[in-house]
Amino acid sequence: MKNYLPITRWGQRYTPAVFADDALAAMIVTIMLIPQSLAYALIAGLPPEVGLYASILPLIAYAIFGTSNTLAVGPVAVVSLMTAAAIGRITETGSADYIAAAATLAFLSGLILLALGVLRMGFLANFLSHPIIAGFITASGILIAASQLKHMFGVTASGHTLIEILQSLISEISSVNLTTLMIGALSIVFLLGARSYLAKLLTGLGVPEKISTPISKAGPLLAVIGTTVAVAWLGLDARGVSIVGEIPSGLPSPGLPEFDVALWRQLAGPALLIAIIGYVESVSVAQTLAAKRRERIDLNQELIGLGAANLAAGTSGGFPITGGFSRSVVNFDAGARTPAAGGFAALGIALTALYLTPLLYYLPKATLAATIIVAVLSLVNVGVIKRTWRYSKSDFAAMMITIAGVFVFGVEIGVISGVALSIILLLYRSSKPHYAIVGQVPGTEHFRNILRHDVTTSPTAASIRIDGNLFFANARFLEDHVLGLAADQPDVKHIVFMCSAINEIDASALESLEAINERLKHAGVTFHLSEVKGPVMDRLQRSHFLGALTGRVFLSEFEAMHTLDPETFPAPNGAPSHSTAKPPKTAG
Amino acid sequence: MKNYLPITRWGQRYTPAVFADDALAAMIVTIMLIPQSLAYALIAGLPPEVGLYASILPLIAYAIFGTSNTLAVGPVAVVSLMTAAAIGRITETGSADYIAAAATLAFLSGLILLALGVLRMGFLANFLSHPIIAGFITASGILIAASQLKHMFGVTASGHTLIEILQSLISEISSVNLTTLMIGALSIVFLLGARSYLAKLLTGLGVPEKISTPISKAGPLLAVIGTTVAVAWLGLDARGVSIVGEIPSGLPSPGLPEFDVALWRQLAGPALLIAIIGYVESVSVAQTLAAKRRERIDLNQELIGLGAANLAAGTSGGFPITGGFSRSVVNFDAGARTPAAGGFAALGIALTALYLTPLLYYLPKATLAATIIVAVLSLVNVGVIKRTWRYSKSDFAAMMITIAGVFVFGVEIGVISGVALSIILLLYRSSKPHYAIVGQVPGTEHFRNILRHDVTTSPTAASIRIDGNLFFANARFLEDHVLGLAADQPDVKHIVFMCSAINEIDASALESLEAINERLKHAGVTFHLSEVKGPVMDRLQRSHFLGALTGRVFLSEFEAMHTLDPETFPAPNGAPSHSTAKPPKTAG
Repeated sequence: MKNYLPITRWGQRYTPAVFADDALAAMIVTIMLIPQSLAYALIAGLPPEVGLYASILPLIAYAIFGTSNTLAVGPVAVVSLMTAAAIGRITETGSADYIAAAATLAFLSGLILLALGVLRMGFLANFLSHPIIAGFITASGILIAASQLKHMFGVTASGHTLIEILQSLISEISSVNLTTLMIGALSIVFLLGARSYLAKLLTGLGVPEKISTPISKAGPLLAVIGTTVAVAWLGLDARGVSIVGEIPSGLPSPGLPEFDVALWRQLAGPALLIAIIGYVESVSVAQTLAAKRRERIDLNQELIGLGAANLAAGTSGGFPITGGFSRSVVNFDAGARTPAAGGFAALGIALTALYLTPLLYYLPKATLAATIIVAVLSLVNVGVIKRTWRYSKSDFAAMMITIAGVFVFGVEIGVISGVALSIILLLYRSSKPHYAIVGQVPGTEHFRNILRHDVTTSPTAASIRIDGNLFFANARFLEDHVLGLAADQPDVKHIVFMCSAINEIDASALESLEAINERLKHAGVTFHLSEVKGPVMDRLQRSHFLGALTGRVFLSEFEAMHTLDPETFPAPNGAPSHSTAKPPKTAG
Repeated sequence: MKNYLPITRWGQRYTPAVFADDALAAMIVTIMLIPQSLAYALIAGLPPEVGLYASILPLIAYAIFGTSNTLAVGPVAVVSLMTAAAIGRITETGSADYIAAAATLAFLSGLILLALGVLRMGFLANFLSHPIIAGFITASGILIAASQLKHMFGVTASGHTLIEILQSLISEISSVNLTTLMIGALSIVFLLGARSYLAKLLTGLGVPEKISTPISKAGPLLAVIGTTVAVAWLGLDARGVSIVGEIPSGLPSPGLPEFDVALWRQLAGPALLIAIIGYVESVSVAQTLAAKRRERIDLNQELIGLGAANLAAGTSGGFPITGGFSRSVVNFDAGARTPAAGGFAALGIALTALYLTPLLYYLPKATLAATIIVAVLSLVNVGVIKRTWRYSKSDFAAMMITIAGVFVFGVEIGVISGVALSIILLLYRSSKPHYAIVGQVPGTEHFRNILRHDVTTSPTAASIRIDGNLFFANARFLEDHVLGLAADQPDVKHIVFMCSAINEIDASALESLEAINERLKHAGVTFHLSEVKGPVMDRLQRSHFLGALTGRVFLSEFEAMHTLDPETFPAPNGAPSHSTAKPPKTAG
């Protein structure tokens, strides 16, 4: 039970000192989260209050069920883009159905994550190769930046691919609103300046770090305040500057999303993709930060934590969320010590939703777009593209296909092609385990790779070793190479399959061993095993294979080769045979 | 070029003797194929002539591009069922749109197979685990048999899942046509009898094998002839026996399927599934038969051969086809020696389509259903279910989930869940490579697994060996275990990562190595490598990793451990250090 409720562990030793650290971190995160939650709702095509709602209950749910002390969950750019792509296909942006579908999508993602967590499938985080994730995130960042240009220019444009978006923008270029463009451009300049120089400036002015740090992270909030005041004061909304307008104040009313079979079916695929991408992104951030403090996160419990957070988003009028990179780093740097920090940030957002929304009436959308563009450009990682190009052309190709997929076909096809490529790469690599034809190290009982050691081999008795478990993905490889050994050495009478590195043989590989034995029999070659581990042997004894085996099962490789060709493989130095090997263990 | 046209290889040494063998085999296969092609069209919900069309050009295409000498391609039961499931969702069974969609589906499958072949992705055949395929085939066989019961009972029933089909049948039970049921039941008894006893009977009567073999395979054709004559003679169609009716005679008119974006999009997923399942099934049959005669098939060229055959089916009014098990075995036993045998069988079917279709007017559908039921029941393999249960509970569970998926949700969800399970299993197994903490075999320079050998270890210098290539699926495993080694041994100062079994490190694993190095540095542990192979070293030198590495790269494991803790790991017997290892090769 305690495993499923990490809060019971850290909650017991919660002290006022920890509380002070958590509360300070929460304050800084809240300052970042207010503009980000509004902006990411904009990416998802949702009203701003939905962004706030997605930053309250989900944070509390993660604080209860999550295992990272520093992960800051909430709306993030890439998942918001994926949300827009998923729901944009189904219903009209901004309609009541659209908002309901976003909550349903979060709910479904939560269910999927929770199910994977209960089934202990945290190993799925291994699934996507790093270059593919990096390519996907980079391309999504550029796509998101492009999608926000319309708000910067004050035009209406649409599209889910880079080409569609740019075409749409170009056709609207004549109706650019210059006042809007000015606000957006100034915001970008201010945000970039604040990020690079504000902290230095404040420290230079002698402001203590405890105060300068939160202020330096408040760039987006300051831009929001500044431009909102300017628009209200100068009446710029009358000059065509698009503003956020009335945001209903108050907290979301909780409730289960409607169970609409057709809608659930349409959203199941996107929910799965969002769950995978969100989980992989979040776990990478959480692990990086945990390692810095020698803390541990639990991969399976993270599925449950993120699942609970998304269920909370789905039942409180939110949209899909996950752990975000920039906010988590800030949370970490600000000294958050337990998941409670996230809970306190939720409190900050709840207060905002209750009392501060009227102040956001005149907030120009161009400012939000500017904060998005500045934020996502940090997702664009050219360094990793260069490094991958230098290190591995095949990884680079996979990365480029993913990037091209996002640009040309949009974020969904992009991520699907990334996933498909990962599977193909996985299959390709798994189908080629390391193997060695082995021979005797002269004067010893050791058998090593003939390509790497000066060893003795026999024309009549050959031996192959496969370094890894045998399972369906490499079963055919096994057949090819063992039968190939017989084909390459026409005089061979015995083949010994050395099993020293094999801990498991699945049913597919067992069938392959049976096929190899059968085919070698037709070719007049006997098939032997050596150094089979105890548990593997126990399972083989439950099959027909050992009964059909034409040869024998030898305890050691030396014993096998010495028995099959004593002239080529004499006992070392004429001494009686001995071995350093412990006797194989048997299960039970 | 010759690689893509295997016909140029065997065609050159084609002799009259080979022709005689091929022609005889073709005759026997044709006798089987006539009723089967009509019956499998029935499974797919298509008019009988479509079955004939799918058995002409595709066979010729495979004869030109395929590499198996004995594979008999054409309509097969499982792929026909998948076709029905795919198109049944889109349009009404039997309509002109339905027929066009079937051809489009074949065309798309062909394109996919061809693309995979050109990209040399034959390794995809490794993809599905054997128990999952066996479960899928078994469940499909039962589902097909159930779907044919309506023709046996002479009622109308529908459904794509076992439950739907059985419910539908039960609700129609009162309108069973007894004459139809009689024809169907007699056909089944005759077919089962013919299969078991006809060959023995004929041999017992002294009929030479050359004649008795074709006749013994003609059971279905004899049933077709017998019941057709009976229906025509006795006028049973007037008593409610459903007959095939008029089959247009003549050959299909070739033509590209219409390019309808919406239709192609709907069919893309099913076409991919059909391509995968068809390929895996076909390759299994082809490899089994090739091994018996010590022939080889080319996995990549098989993709092209089956792709060409499906393109031919799609452009000549057919439907998706692949290599079938029973016909291929018959072709093999009958002595087919080259792919030309398939071409000759195509000629037989073409003649049938031109001249014999009027004779099939009175053919009762119940007879076709009976031939299907008898044929598919041989797909049901209870033995493999039992064997898998005994050998591996996890493989058994995957098999059962696939079977349940087919029964409860139909063939498409069944195969998707099978594929998904295979991927999850693959990921799970790939994420856990074999590894060993190693220590020194006393008195030698060898380092072996501490769990399996009595070896010497040091409290300050630990070493781990991973037996397999490092790539994204096991990158996290690597991090966990190397860092775990540091966590478990608080006094450890040096960790040596022994790379003797590593042939490749992908970009994801490189990132993990960088992370490990970084994190160990924070913990005051230096990180070393040993026995890095030449090509791996060359690539590492193109990265930043070696520059950041806190420790050294040692040529041998002994050199590493001896350098880091000379007291624990002295040179053997005080002699100067030497090694049997060849110096690592460097590329270029």
